Amino acid sequence: MNWVAIDWGTTNVRFWLMSGKGELLSSKNSSMGMNLIPRDQYENHIIEMVGEWFQPSEPIDVIACGMVGAANGWVEAKYQSTPCLPVSTEKITRVPTKSPNLEVRIIPGIASYSPNHDVMRGEETQICGFLGDNPAFEGVLCLPGTHTKWVEIKSDQVMGFKTFMTGELYDVLCKSSILRHSVNTDSWDENEFVSSVETSLNHPEEITTRLFSIRSESLLDGLQPENATSRLAGFLIGLELAGSKKYWDRNNIAIIGSKTLAQNYLKALELIGIDSRLVDSDTCTIKGLDRTRHLHAID
Amino acid sequence: MNWVAIDWGTTNVRFWLMSGKGELLSSKNSSMGMNLIPRDQYENHIIEMVGEWFQPSEPIDVIACGMVGAANGWVEAKYQSTPCLPVSTEKITRVPTKSPNLEVRIIPGIASYSPNHDVMRGEETQICGFLGDNPAFEGVLCLPGTHTKWVEIKSDQVMGFKTFMTGELYDVLCKSSILRHSVNTDSWDENEFVSSVETSLNHPEEITTRLFSIRSESLLDGLQPENATSRLAGFLIGLELAGSKKYWDRNNIAIIGSKTLAQNYLKALELIGIDSRLVDSDTCTIKGLDRTRHLHAID
Repeated sequence: MNWVAIDWGTTNVRFWLMSGKGELLSSKNSSMGMNLIPRDQYENHIIEMVGEWFQPSEPIDVIACGMVGAANGWVEAKYQSTPCLPVSTEKITRVPTKSPNLEVRIIPGIASYSPNHDVMRGEETQICGFLGDNPAFEGVLCLPGTHTKWVEIKSDQVMGFKTFMTGELYDVLCKSSILRHSVNTDSWDENEFVSSVETSLNHPEEITTRLFSIRSESLLDGLQPENATSRLAGFLIGLELAGSKKYWDRNNIAIIGSKTLAQNYLKALELIGIDSRLVDSDTCTIKGLDRTRHLHAID
Repeated sequence: MNWVAIDWGTTNVRFWLMSGKGELLSSKNSSMGMNLIPRDQYENHIIEMVGEWFQPSEPIDVIACGMVGAANGWVEAKYQSTPCLPVSTEKITRVPTKSPNLEVRIIPGIASYSPNHDVMRGEETQICGFLGDNPAFEGVLCLPGTHTKWVEIKSDQVMGFKTFMTGELYDVLCKSSILRHSVNTDSWDENEFVSSVETSLNHPEEITTRLFSIRSESLLDGLQPENATSRLAGFLIGLELAGSKKYWDRNNIAIIGSKTLAQNYLKALELIGIDSRLVDSDTCTIKGLDRTRHLHAID
């Protein structure tokens, strides 16, 4: 029986039509992320997007992850707490729907209370998918993004994790700070990136003065936008590496991410002598939703 | 003879009517900062704002500092380079005006090329004013703001300086990041501020994960907006202190700033056992513009 996998994020939504055997049959995107869609429109939006994949009276089985389960999403799927399995069958939230043919389940996020408060929502599903393909994995997963996660995995469980606002900081600085006059996010200089990672890793305390010096150097010496952009990214990723040393130092590391950003993390780790490998995040998300459906069906 | 002192910033402009003896007679504000006003409207705007302070054919003598002298301001007043006097008579830029009664001079900013590129524009005038009242001062000036400056002063000269984007980072995080859901910039918790300065000073490399934990703690434990705001400010000022240690360690320090922000810096320095004193920044700006006029008149 075909079913639907959904990754419902803050600003966009991905729908995948899946076969009962876990093969990807079709996909669609929508921009009705959690930030835009009113609470009472989630069900209509699902029918609107995936209705054509099913016969009129055919049951539609949906497994979703991401911000759809946040307190201000559709229905709150309460956080699990570390240490825990990335996804556990008894914690899936079933959503009350109006349409009798539609069954929707939402995967909860994970909270951590030590050493600081921290949360993830969506990444637990990628981790679940990754562990499906790498059942004996022990080590650290790095999930780069708006809020990059460093996650410690042992005995199939999420032991702890830390989030770094690196991606969001990059975005707000490029769009809303004085650096917007200096950067050009379409261009890139590899050497500049690598040397900036190193600078910032060695002197994380200088980050806010280094950021301003990007602007000063464009004013005084015509620093080119591609250099400014790569330098900004390098400074922020270097800063993150300085703060996440506990995770990457002497550990088995896999990076779960999408192409360009994940490769920048790979290169930054390479620079400091750390081997890691890349795994595609979409593949992990789909695999995680599929695994969840199987676990849950057995229930 | 009365004259006009102007501090023309990025987002707002202050006009002061001054007596020939340097007494403040009247003042006005406008929101036509450098970001808003077209290049050919500066002269009209001055006449519009200060015209009523003078007789129709009376000469109007203006000394201005700030972004009005930037490359994309009215007329570029090219940077001096460190080491230099904060304001030196031969570097003042005279602006060609249409009105024969209007004479305008702009004070240039200061550039520094070591260890990193850095610039100031407006602060040099405050420093000039401060040194007018404290002629023998040797030590460090801290000028908190959107782009906080730490400035080394010796023999009346600016020897070097560093800018930290602390204020701007605070603003963009409050307005444009996920933290906007957690903070409330009207409220404050003193203890939270102080302990956050300490945390960040000791672990500057953790800044981007600490920032995210503010959001996580509001989600998981209902962290109150006043605590979130004070914590954010504390983390960012603590980070700056970690990066500016060379300046504040074993030095004679004065903080030139406006009330609340400058007092937060004073408290943060107090916490780490550093004595400093506060000087009002507007007073320094006016005094600096007045000193410049005298220096220049002698010329």
